[in-house]
Amino acid sequence: MTDVALRLLAGDLRALSQVMSSVERADPEAAPVMQALDAHTGRAYTIGVTGPPGAGKSTIVDRLTELLRREGSTVGIIAADPTSPFTGGALLGDRVRMQRHYLDAQVFIRSVATRGQSGGLPRAIKTMVRLLDAAGKSIVLVETVGVGQTELGIMEVADTVLVTLVPESGDAIQTLKAGVMEIADIFVINKADREGAGQMAAAVTAMQGLAPRQGWTPPVVLTKAHAGEGIPELWSKIQEHRQHLIQTAELEQRRQQRRVKEFVEMVEGELGRRWRGRLANDPVLAALRDRVARKESEPYSAALQLLDSSPLTLY
Amino acid sequence: MTDVALRLLAGDLRALSQVMSSVERADPEAAPVMQALDAHTGRAYTIGVTGPPGAGKSTIVDRLTELLRREGSTVGIIAADPTSPFTGGALLGDRVRMQRHYLDAQVFIRSVATRGQSGGLPRAIKTMVRLLDAAGKSIVLVETVGVGQTELGIMEVADTVLVTLVPESGDAIQTLKAGVMEIADIFVINKADREGAGQMAAAVTAMQGLAPRQGWTPPVVLTKAHAGEGIPELWSKIQEHRQHLIQTAELEQRRQQRRVKEFVEMVEGELGRRWRGRLANDPVLAALRDRVARKESEPYSAALQLLDSSPLTLY
Repeated sequence: MTDVALRLLAGDLRALSQVMSSVERADPEAAPVMQALDAHTGRAYTIGVTGPPGAGKSTIVDRLTELLRREGSTVGIIAADPTSPFTGGALLGDRVRMQRHYLDAQVFIRSVATRGQSGGLPRAIKTMVRLLDAAGKSIVLVETVGVGQTELGIMEVADTVLVTLVPESGDAIQTLKAGVMEIADIFVINKADREGAGQMAAAVTAMQGLAPRQGWTPPVVLTKAHAGEGIPELWSKIQEHRQHLIQTAELEQRRQQRRVKEFVEMVEGELGRRWRGRLANDPVLAALRDRVARKESEPYSAALQLLDSSPLTLY
Repeated sequence: MTDVALRLLAGDLRALSQVMSSVERADPEAAPVMQALDAHTGRAYTIGVTGPPGAGKSTIVDRLTELLRREGSTVGIIAADPTSPFTGGALLGDRVRMQRHYLDAQVFIRSVATRGQSGGLPRAIKTMVRLLDAAGKSIVLVETVGVGQTELGIMEVADTVLVTLVPESGDAIQTLKAGVMEIADIFVINKADREGAGQMAAAVTAMQGLAPRQGWTPPVVLTKAHAGEGIPELWSKIQEHRQHLIQTAELEQRRQQRRVKEFVEMVEGELGRRWRGRLANDPVLAALRDRVARKESEPYSAALQLLDSSPLTLY
């Protein structure tokens, strides 16, 4: 086993940070480390937290972390940050709230920028979850802002998905469109002291009648995360869902799918990265690119012709 | 020239729709068509409209279309639809407003789902803009909801980018974070009768002092798009920006970069698609995938090993 893998298993936070950065940039040096660590994974439980901006996701993550630490669990937190010009500022503001946990060596927090990444969540997050697992974190929390295309990705990363909603004047029903029902294992209605919270809970429950799930009906938990209210109830529902997944063998199935997805996305991402690298360094390809720019060659057909001249060989 | 290309140049809408669908799924059959049409492009002017959900982008597109049709322009509209579970419903609602233009043969409207696509806007939108150009549309409007990662993509597709904002109680400054300034060629503050509109306009203008652009300072246009107010002023600012781009030769430069980007993304997308196709049909790769699922092989290192066994040959 590599030295860095051994240090990571022994709880060395610098080793963990170092490998996190390596896997984020798909560094081949991380490959033997990941290989060595694989046997040490499978114990962590991953909870995804998604929802629209302003729903209080970071506060829920913060309060759950507090509860988990009191119970003696160790916690890894991955925050996917879309760094959108329209929401970026708000997200960074949320991060600040988590700072008190930065002083706790048993809580590992990592932000992952998702700008320019492929649809869904970045592949690296799946690898990072396995790293935190190997590093001995018993609970991994993955927070994603549910805007655009990232919110479905959370299903591919988490064992239990919390969809966080907030009562907004008039918007209660608007936010409950088709799709959310498929993502959520548990609904959290945060800022439950706001007007419309009860109405929203009723609407969610009513919609569940339309799309029933086999064996598990996502419960609705009301929270005032800022004051810590509803967090113990939320944790108890997460544990119930975990038991459900274990009993139905769905947990193992989800985790197998997750490994396959990580593998497929890693190959895909690397193919793209290698293509861009070749284009930057290969004068023949650069000449083709310049012909496309100067309208001597048409982009769509030039791309297909280039690929047709060389079938993708993989082994 | 292919038959479908000829029909498309002659204004046949069925031919246009057909090629649109082909390029969306990267069909090789569209390659000779795109090649034949390339000489007939370069006349259309592309306007991107982005902004947060609820800012009234569709209404602005609708009102601009109305004005352009009155002036005798033909219009192509591409609406990038992230079909987010949190915003999907609202977007579909907006689409309904455009319906009156569906009856106008000189307005071609196309929605493009962006779910599961790579970061930024789907590559197909760049190809579609060139198609609408070849089909004789003098103005192409591309509407994208600015959530997550798509809003930067609009810069890669449009000659002039409108960033649409709306005065929200307290949120005025929040929405003006770094990044927006780089995207916008023109700021549109819609729903300008709302409280805070003047404040927001002042804030945008103030921020421009911090990040001045060479030669072009994005103007701020106040609109009440619902009532059509401010739309003629907006159109006049778009024409000013167009003149600026022509005079500085930036228009040609932007368009060359767009062609290169389309080419690069097309190759990248196809590499990924071919990899997934191979995985689905090749028993050796399927066996490797199953080993990854069963934890007999580790995803990260398995992916890199697979790729290292066969360097990417492209010509």
